[in-house]
Amino acid sequence: MKSLYLSSSGPGIREIPDEPRAGEARIRLSLGGVCATDLELVKGYMGFTGVLGHEWVGVVEESPDAAWIGRRVVGDINCPCGACPACRAGRGNHCPSRSVLGILNRDGAFSERFSLPVANLHEVPGGVSDEAAVFVEPLAAACQILEQVHISPRMSVVVLGAGRLGQLCARVLALTGARVSVVNRSLWKLDALPGSVTPVPLADAGALPLADVVVECTGAAAGLAMATDRVRPGGTLVLKTTIKDPEDFDPTRWVVDEITVVGSRCGPFDAALRLLEAGLVDPTTLISARRSLSDGVAALAEARRPDRLKVVLDPTG
Amino acid sequence: MKSLYLSSSGPGIREIPDEPRAGEARIRLSLGGVCATDLELVKGYMGFTGVLGHEWVGVVEESPDAAWIGRRVVGDINCPCGACPACRAGRGNHCPSRSVLGILNRDGAFSERFSLPVANLHEVPGGVSDEAAVFVEPLAAACQILEQVHISPRMSVVVLGAGRLGQLCARVLALTGARVSVVNRSLWKLDALPGSVTPVPLADAGALPLADVVVECTGAAAGLAMATDRVRPGGTLVLKTTIKDPEDFDPTRWVVDEITVVGSRCGPFDAALRLLEAGLVDPTTLISARRSLSDGVAALAEARRPDRLKVVLDPTG
Repeated sequence: MKSLYLSSSGPGIREIPDEPRAGEARIRLSLGGVCATDLELVKGYMGFTGVLGHEWVGVVEESPDAAWIGRRVVGDINCPCGACPACRAGRGNHCPSRSVLGILNRDGAFSERFSLPVANLHEVPGGVSDEAAVFVEPLAAACQILEQVHISPRMSVVVLGAGRLGQLCARVLALTGARVSVVNRSLWKLDALPGSVTPVPLADAGALPLADVVVECTGAAAGLAMATDRVRPGGTLVLKTTIKDPEDFDPTRWVVDEITVVGSRCGPFDAALRLLEAGLVDPTTLISARRSLSDGVAALAEARRPDRLKVVLDPTG
Repeated sequence: MKSLYLSSSGPGIREIPDEPRAGEARIRLSLGGVCATDLELVKGYMGFTGVLGHEWVGVVEESPDAAWIGRRVVGDINCPCGACPACRAGRGNHCPSRSVLGILNRDGAFSERFSLPVANLHEVPGGVSDEAAVFVEPLAAACQILEQVHISPRMSVVVLGAGRLGQLCARVLALTGARVSVVNRSLWKLDALPGSVTPVPLADAGALPLADVVVECTGAAAGLAMATDRVRPGGTLVLKTTIKDPEDFDPTRWVVDEITVVGSRCGPFDAALRLLEAGLVDPTTLISARRSLSDGVAALAEARRPDRLKVVLDPTG
């Protein structure tokens, strides 16, 4: 069975045994999406080896609960133990012994077939295409901002970065009625934004009024300092991307100006599906390229190119 | 009029003119308290020059509202403009053109007399001694944690640092019924804690369960990394002290574990006065030394000593 496998020597297409995990659903991949986290994993983040891939839509082929067989699904990527204090407190996403699809102790979705617990599955409504459903995982991550921070209609929000995740965050945040601006260096990514948000070239960002909420989606070393510069006293800074070795970082202003900083990761799949089904968010325009899973190594390289947004992987291509 | 004055060449006792600020109350100092911020100002923080001092209790001698004359008072140290968007939004503490007593564009309280707007004053109830009232400003800063973060009785809280501010934060946080532990290197400061909190020597901190809330009160370069290590996934990290050039700082864990970081500064004087009046917090045991204002320069040096907690200044001594 063909898989995009990350070993210690790098990513490669590998034939692996088709071995379902006991007690879990077995899913045939319909479409996969390459995420910045995949590119970080290839660079050594988390020390992960195994099948890559955590953005996907597929069809259930086997399941302990037969009612799922044949259904088109997406699925939560965190697989908690269900028994530890974090799980019992309702914080399964933070279970210390969780596995995470294609990220931590669990083979991912960039494979002809893969396994996931039935409890993680969400059926995709008929009106939502595979090309839209493959965005549910990052769209849920964008919705997580609204789980953690109350953004109300009178607020101003600045999203730093118009890459894959910034594009989705901007679309979701604009649904609140708040004034949403998106700052990015390359202008073509600003052109990809919907009319509901204000595009701001990086050179003009200094002229923006300080915002109630700043969402950091650049992943750049300078992103934390820039986000701190753009938030008003008493405001909130949301970190959506991991930043290793931040530059010019000084938390003094956070204390003096009482800034709240919110680390934000995975979010609610059901909310993301509702937004797609209602047509409130259309992520499909973000697909820059559709590649065969067999060309997965080249697709990973392509996803790094500054002139690409989402690269999707087709196992049948 | 005798004042403890910080000039570009350092702190010194200086005679300055007794000049009230028009439209403000004029206050005779009864007792002042030396704060870590004063010691930072002496090192160049904020570039402040002028009379030091923002922790104090005094008696109103002149006032545009005569009803205040003769009353024993403490007072909010932030003097907002009252007209800008931040002030109109109820965030006067974050007014960009505010002055701050003894910290920013305004002479402080370590002087025989000083001025403050009437709107900033709070009368000290008769049952609260000067030695307790001089702690209202830092006690209010400790209360600010509860303004910003909901700490409930089932939670666990770890306070890093048993210095002047950590001592007060621990006392206030223990009032919530939450389990509060305080970590400190020097054992005698742990001995100064009340029975409502658990003292933890630094060497034993690694054995503490990860806490729902960690409050950073060390001001040390390593404090941010240590605080991050001690908070549970999904938990909250409160920054009460400014940390310049934090060591080993990596915000990756904040994103992956969805940590919320809350910068916290000045707080509600009225709440602090209620706690003192009710006898729920007794800060007076933290006074290590009472010195004459005339010996203010030596008192600043003494406040730096690791075997001292609060040093108070008596203008009549």
